[in-house]
Amino acid sequence: MAVGLEAPQALKPVAGVRLAAVQAGIRYRNRTDLVLMELAAGSDVAAVFTRNAFRAAPVLVAEAHLAAANPRYLLINSGNANAGTGQGGLDAAQASCAAVAGVAGCEADEVLPFSTGVIGEPLPVERIEAALPGALEALAEDAWLAAARGIMTTDTVAKGVSRTVTIDGLDVTLTGIAKGSGMIHPDMATMLAYVATDAAVPADVLKQSLKLAADRSFNAVTVDGDTSTNDACVLVATGSAGVRVTEGKALDAFQAALDEVCMLLAQAIIRDGEGATKFVTIDVMGAASEAEARQVGFTIAHSPLVKTALFASDPNWGRILAAVGRAGVEDLDVGRIDIYLGDVRIVRAGGRDAAYTEEQGQAVMQRDEIDIRVELDRGEARARVWTSDLSHEYVRINAEYRS
Amino acid sequence: MAVGLEAPQALKPVAGVRLAAVQAGIRYRNRTDLVLMELAAGSDVAAVFTRNAFRAAPVLVAEAHLAAANPRYLLINSGNANAGTGQGGLDAAQASCAAVAGVAGCEADEVLPFSTGVIGEPLPVERIEAALPGALEALAEDAWLAAARGIMTTDTVAKGVSRTVTIDGLDVTLTGIAKGSGMIHPDMATMLAYVATDAAVPADVLKQSLKLAADRSFNAVTVDGDTSTNDACVLVATGSAGVRVTEGKALDAFQAALDEVCMLLAQAIIRDGEGATKFVTIDVMGAASEAEARQVGFTIAHSPLVKTALFASDPNWGRILAAVGRAGVEDLDVGRIDIYLGDVRIVRAGGRDAAYTEEQGQAVMQRDEIDIRVELDRGEARARVWTSDLSHEYVRINAEYRS
Repeated sequence: MAVGLEAPQALKPVAGVRLAAVQAGIRYRNRTDLVLMELAAGSDVAAVFTRNAFRAAPVLVAEAHLAAANPRYLLINSGNANAGTGQGGLDAAQASCAAVAGVAGCEADEVLPFSTGVIGEPLPVERIEAALPGALEALAEDAWLAAARGIMTTDTVAKGVSRTVTIDGLDVTLTGIAKGSGMIHPDMATMLAYVATDAAVPADVLKQSLKLAADRSFNAVTVDGDTSTNDACVLVATGSAGVRVTEGKALDAFQAALDEVCMLLAQAIIRDGEGATKFVTIDVMGAASEAEARQVGFTIAHSPLVKTALFASDPNWGRILAAVGRAGVEDLDVGRIDIYLGDVRIVRAGGRDAAYTEEQGQAVMQRDEIDIRVELDRGEARARVWTSDLSHEYVRINAEYRS
Repeated sequence: MAVGLEAPQALKPVAGVRLAAVQAGIRYRNRTDLVLMELAAGSDVAAVFTRNAFRAAPVLVAEAHLAAANPRYLLINSGNANAGTGQGGLDAAQASCAAVAGVAGCEADEVLPFSTGVIGEPLPVERIEAALPGALEALAEDAWLAAARGIMTTDTVAKGVSRTVTIDGLDVTLTGIAKGSGMIHPDMATMLAYVATDAAVPADVLKQSLKLAADRSFNAVTVDGDTSTNDACVLVATGSAGVRVTEGKALDAFQAALDEVCMLLAQAIIRDGEGATKFVTIDVMGAASEAEARQVGFTIAHSPLVKTALFASDPNWGRILAAVGRAGVEDLDVGRIDIYLGDVRIVRAGGRDAAYTEEQGQAVMQRDEIDIRVELDRGEARARVWTSDLSHEYVRINAEYRS
């Protein structure tokens, strides 16, 4: 069902990062569900995590470990979120880190754990422990695509992207993978996404770069408005390329490449949104503030009525208009609002555009990729939000499958 | 599909109110779509309207007319919302009031217009004008049920309720009708609902009573989180029963009966929610404020993942927990939260209750009527919210039908 999205043919290795994906049998059968990432000593790591108040055990442990030590290993399992599992869940996350430390010869707090899958089931740590020696043995620089597959849950397509950017005359590589399809409305963080570069980027710069990139990508997408308990996005800089990025043009070039990688990963998640048949870009312009623009954008993106109209390719612009009107913008003067479907102005000055014909709207809505633009005419701020439609398949997936 | 809801067998007339439902052919064929309500001279009227910034033309006109004069007629059409129609829509709403005034011999501003149906289409005023003489001729005290049918859109069942309460030794009747099935998340108002009583209630008391009742009923329900452009709730007091209600025990008795009528109408809308297979009551207790409790309740009620789990009768409590966690409650201590499905405690102190078994949750979720209770343990405030599930039928209705 993914809209305009295919799995990458190949992903570029990042010097200093080795990966392995193995079958631990955590929940799924006959597929990989455990990924181990090894980071070269001296790598810098930044991460952003979900702001859902119910943060999963691995999120709590990963955050504590990141604060305590420089990570050497990332351990990611699919099939079980280890969320809503209380003290037992924390113990399980710690135990899986200790297991990595035991076979790899590092400290437990040099391991960051991540989990994605069903909420509220005990994590079968013993299966992870049993699979770790094989994972360690399988570590390889060219296993990014295998890792992208290993972290999938309801995803139908593996998600990854590589970019090479020249900084100070040297090639710097960025490669990222992500998973996510439902429970997608990241809040200052994301689903699971891992991006690595062989540039050297000091931790504080890395953290700021990741925050900027995440706000422009993962935090601007929504499938169903449901923020996960396990969202995490990790950015690794190994420094193996011999390029140091701290400020100026080098940082600009790095940020631009990072933004693009994160944006493509975030869009991939929407294109593969549960049951998605449309990829929708919503631009809100002329807002009094960026927050206001985002608020309007997400209100449209979350409206079940707008989403079902998108599914039906029905230019039912009244539903868009109603969503804008209920977005909670103070003193909204609806008489100044224009709304466009693609290049077609459907609403002018708060009412149906006199020149608009149903055929024009229909032509835009038939497409797989649809742009909605709202002009509020209240200020200069703007925001862009990406979303998918609400289809029969979304209901089927979420009614039949316990993710 | 309505859950535990049948059309009323009969509705009690309210002395001082006459109604008629006729076929104007506005959009539907072979069904009534125009309702005229005549109020006895001297009746008091209170109303609350949608807070969607895009208020439909009839909402703007009805509000202005209500401020200018004592209403003698309410004119309601289904099949066309006359929303997003600009100046032409305002002219059309005014013209339909003038048409009533012409045939009934009153002033145009003594008529309140209401519309429900598709957004953005011009209102065919001439069809309303043509149908009005017949409507006036058909006015009758016992036509409440016919009126309830005439205002339906995607409703599958006509909604109405009557109560009789004894005040000062005399019988006072309250009868109300409502419509609504989708685009249901009233904000300080509701879908379309009309309640009349033969008590005499001064306008200021009537207004306050209606606000209280609406907050406890229509403003506590949601189907899809989409606040309509046309929501309106009208309360009429004709005074024909010879009972005057202003304060004290009389007001308490009146308010209690009004609350019950409004609550049953609001619940009827949820039971007949688009594609509904479940009727869900969400109680949030122990909140720091009522606003906070409502916020948590509506976040659960709007979650597509919770709603699809309800449709599937799947006790996927992790989705409820994730919704509570993202509800935006400041400094939420998840370690204090308990969650119940019916009488079954599924979450204790923020994690899965050790004594909980999947079979217990399954037994509750199989029911048509499901109670979810969240105990935040932060204070004394509480709120109750009613909602429906998200089914294949919801998607079908909203993808195939342009409401």
